[in-house]
Amino acid sequence: MAWIKVVGTGPGKIDYLTLRAFNLLKQADLIVGYQRYIELIKEEFSDKQMFDFGMGDEYLRAQKAIELYLSGNKVAVISGGDAGLYGIASIVIEKMIELNIDFEKAEFEVVPGVTSATAVSNMFGSVLTQDFATISLSDYLIPWEEIEKRLIEFSKLDISIAIYNPISSKRVQNFEKALEILRKYRALDTLVVVSENAYRDGEKSFVVTLRDLKKEDVNMSTIIIVCPSNARIIVNDRKTYVLVPRYYRKESGNF
Amino acid sequence: MAWIKVVGTGPGKIDYLTLRAFNLLKQADLIVGYQRYIELIKEEFSDKQMFDFGMGDEYLRAQKAIELYLSGNKVAVISGGDAGLYGIASIVIEKMIELNIDFEKAEFEVVPGVTSATAVSNMFGSVLTQDFATISLSDYLIPWEEIEKRLIEFSKLDISIAIYNPISSKRVQNFEKALEILRKYRALDTLVVVSENAYRDGEKSFVVTLRDLKKEDVNMSTIIIVCPSNARIIVNDRKTYVLVPRYYRKESGNF
Repeated sequence: MAWIKVVGTGPGKIDYLTLRAFNLLKQADLIVGYQRYIELIKEEFSDKQMFDFGMGDEYLRAQKAIELYLSGNKVAVISGGDAGLYGIASIVIEKMIELNIDFEKAEFEVVPGVTSATAVSNMFGSVLTQDFATISLSDYLIPWEEIEKRLIEFSKLDISIAIYNPISSKRVQNFEKALEILRKYRALDTLVVVSENAYRDGEKSFVVTLRDLKKEDVNMSTIIIVCPSNARIIVNDRKTYVLVPRYYRKESGNF
Repeated sequence: MAWIKVVGTGPGKIDYLTLRAFNLLKQADLIVGYQRYIELIKEEFSDKQMFDFGMGDEYLRAQKAIELYLSGNKVAVISGGDAGLYGIASIVIEKMIELNIDFEKAEFEVVPGVTSATAVSNMFGSVLTQDFATISLSDYLIPWEEIEKRLIEFSKLDISIAIYNPISSKRVQNFEKALEILRKYRALDTLVVVSENAYRDGEKSFVVTLRDLKKEDVNMSTIIIVCPSNARIIVNDRKTYVLVPRYYRKESGNF
């Protein structure tokens, strides 16, 4: 029987797929996805037919996946991280409605994955411990004015802010404007965690202050977490941890 | 060789553990955790010694885990969802520092998991598609004034808000105050997704409007997601989906 599943593949390596995601990919006939994420899993699922697409063609990708399902295939549409958050799930659902696909017959399901914010948080120990917000700096689908408004309000609150899609080769100015906002509302010595290719080959992760963060530190594969004021840096052995205590602004820390 | 790992077990069933989490739990000698989460995994790892603890004893739990590691065991400290977010990771790190544990020798690692916000989002298709914020209504470690301030600012923005720990038997008033805030800043017909025991036995999930949401709808095991204004409810077959389109306030939807 044919089916269609949207599967979140987590931050990178197969190791960070859920068992459910792994098993569904093993059962699938075809895997459809953005080429970058196909690349990360294709060795493990080398017996599958893969359909890789470029960036920006999400609606085409969703349409192709549905066509392949309608021709009788078990189709897994993959999305890095969680399939929902800044992912392809909503686009597949929109297309399914548009094409009058029976969700139940299609055994439709969106399989959750580990999103980059929590993945990167854990690389440094525990950056996201308390309330946090996520924001994408891409203004392709959301107007910059709205992104700016959100970033200002998040910056005024003493919470962690996970920044997705900080910069692209064509889009540098949003990151520069974001840095200005963050520096206006947060102390310059605020800790910022930067991770490029988290849990993938070529990983590069480090901690900087808001003062020193610069555009050369980030690219399309980077996730940034701006820490709250009670974050502490801990250099233990050869590894750096960033600890956000569970309590809020407790005057006398336990260490 | 002994080690200590903090492992996020995701929303519930074994199926939603990552492969890394699953493999580490298989390798562990001992599993330490809050009794509720121990309960969910104990069948699969029945050959392990389990140390279950009650709620509110996080520091004791972390200390016990470290003691067990120091006596030569491979110790997995589990936390539901992601081990960082509202989880035990930061507490274990604090205790390790206090007790002068060598992180590298201990092969210390925090293994990410699927957090409730994204898990619940995917149960309804795609609720968290765009920027979102998480907030816990528990004022055990954060003063209510700060929680309230955050909730007000999140409510003013047109983003999804995932609410953790909405209520407890001893703490009903925070939820009532939160409802008041949400109803002040958001339209009363705003969609709200409510999920109790997501991905676990006894799951109960539904969609209500902010107008109709009431304290009887929630308990300690409930996660709530307040949707942005462009969320749409889709009843397909016997299942309800909530779709938040990728684009922001596009006037002419595709369906």
